[in-house]
Amino acid sequence: MIMGQNGQGALRNLRMMLSYDGSGYHGWQRQKGQITVQQVLEEAIGRITGEDIRVIGSGRTDAGVHALRQVAHFKTRSQIGIANLHRGINSLLPEDVVVKEIDQVDAAFHARYDAGSKIYCYQIWNGPVRSPLCRRYAWFVREPLAGGRMGEALTLLTGTHDFSSFCAADSGNRNPVRTIIAGSVKSDSGGMIMITIEADGFLKHMVRNIVGTLVEIGSGRRSAEAILGLLEAKDRCLAGVTAPPGGLFLMEVKYG
Amino acid sequence: MIMGQNGQGALRNLRMMLSYDGSGYHGWQRQKGQITVQQVLEEAIGRITGEDIRVIGSGRTDAGVHALRQVAHFKTRSQIGIANLHRGINSLLPEDVVVKEIDQVDAAFHARYDAGSKIYCYQIWNGPVRSPLCRRYAWFVREPLAGGRMGEALTLLTGTHDFSSFCAADSGNRNPVRTIIAGSVKSDSGGMIMITIEADGFLKHMVRNIVGTLVEIGSGRRSAEAILGLLEAKDRCLAGVTAPPGGLFLMEVKYG
Repeated sequence: MIMGQNGQGALRNLRMMLSYDGSGYHGWQRQKGQITVQQVLEEAIGRITGEDIRVIGSGRTDAGVHALRQVAHFKTRSQIGIANLHRGINSLLPEDVVVKEIDQVDAAFHARYDAGSKIYCYQIWNGPVRSPLCRRYAWFVREPLAGGRMGEALTLLTGTHDFSSFCAADSGNRNPVRTIIAGSVKSDSGGMIMITIEADGFLKHMVRNIVGTLVEIGSGRRSAEAILGLLEAKDRCLAGVTAPPGGLFLMEVKYG
Repeated sequence: MIMGQNGQGALRNLRMMLSYDGSGYHGWQRQKGQITVQQVLEEAIGRITGEDIRVIGSGRTDAGVHALRQVAHFKTRSQIGIANLHRGINSLLPEDVVVKEIDQVDAAFHARYDAGSKIYCYQIWNGPVRSPLCRRYAWFVREPLAGGRMGEALTLLTGTHDFSSFCAADSGNRNPVRTIIAGSVKSDSGGMIMITIEADGFLKHMVRNIVGTLVEIGSGRRSAEAILGLLEAKDRCLAGVTAPPGGLFLMEVKYG
């Protein structure tokens, strides 16, 4: 083992698979005066390794958005074994954040730059009354939704488009072109509608704005085909409302 | 309409189907100095009807236990239409309790005395790391569990038995004989194990004590057959630990 000047070992690049309940966080990204997922991770890891740790995620998630399999990496000179590091970090994290897996990767691996595509899932609780048990994890929509029509509309969005109409006005994104690789709308017998979207990248609030528009289509207020006109208009004011964050889950980040 | 002495209508008997997240409650039953599900229901209904309302549930659920379809009834002289009553009560209930359905039933219907059998489901999150998203709704068990052996053991419990070994010591139940009508243990691909038990009645902590024992069987610390010896011993001290309440859901109450 080659020791560094500070008496510690060589720099290692560690990749983590994370899961979190976003209900109690002001999103992923560290910011002053707000508790964020990145911050609790950096603090927990820093306490274990004794370093100033910088955790890089595959991308931000908004306040209140959850993750089943977020990917992130950090660099450390600590030579604590992976298994002990894993246990140690999880023992210091709050109960709504966990490191599911951790492994050492090539020094060049970058959780954000190397991400190929991401899969998000949005849950809608569709029924006459709200669901106490799903209240943090699904959007309650009372008016009956035709999942089939929502699926048709989502299919029309697949492919490469300028998604300006579905991008938050304050996003600051210079390039609004993204590719939706796949999308599906499934309903279970209990009243839950699950909307899954895979894309090479997402603009700010893109999934939630698409979901808000799909709900207007599912309820019959817009036709499925109308979504093409919205795409062409490139005007955020025309599309549907932004669905609330609690129904949204980052499901997977694909690499290479 | 025959008006009562107080200027209101005839007495109606109303049956409710309820769902609640038990995390924030000291169980179903009203008690001094603690918030309970029965209490928030009686207060909400009482504010709508202007009466002193007594809600009778099919049975108690313990502190922290959830319900998907609890059944309860109450009597009222209010002549507010059912749909308005339903909306009104739900608008006054906290977000973790909801009336899913409400209808008028025969004056003789009694949610507790008429209940034929109940179905409970217990969720175990079985994997190497805890799950932030399931933390309120499943028991995290790290050691790998053999669901098949747990299912075998549960099958041995079906039928009519003296369940003293699985009854809380302080229950005060005079008759410890119950009939388990059906039981199953299912595992999904994600790591969740779901234990479902239908019985004509449950002793205090009975499901949670059975689950605690099944976990010891699934981990290999006891054999599946050992559960028969526990039954025969009629001694609470010999069986497994009491599983925590958050994993338990009252799924259904059957009548007639």
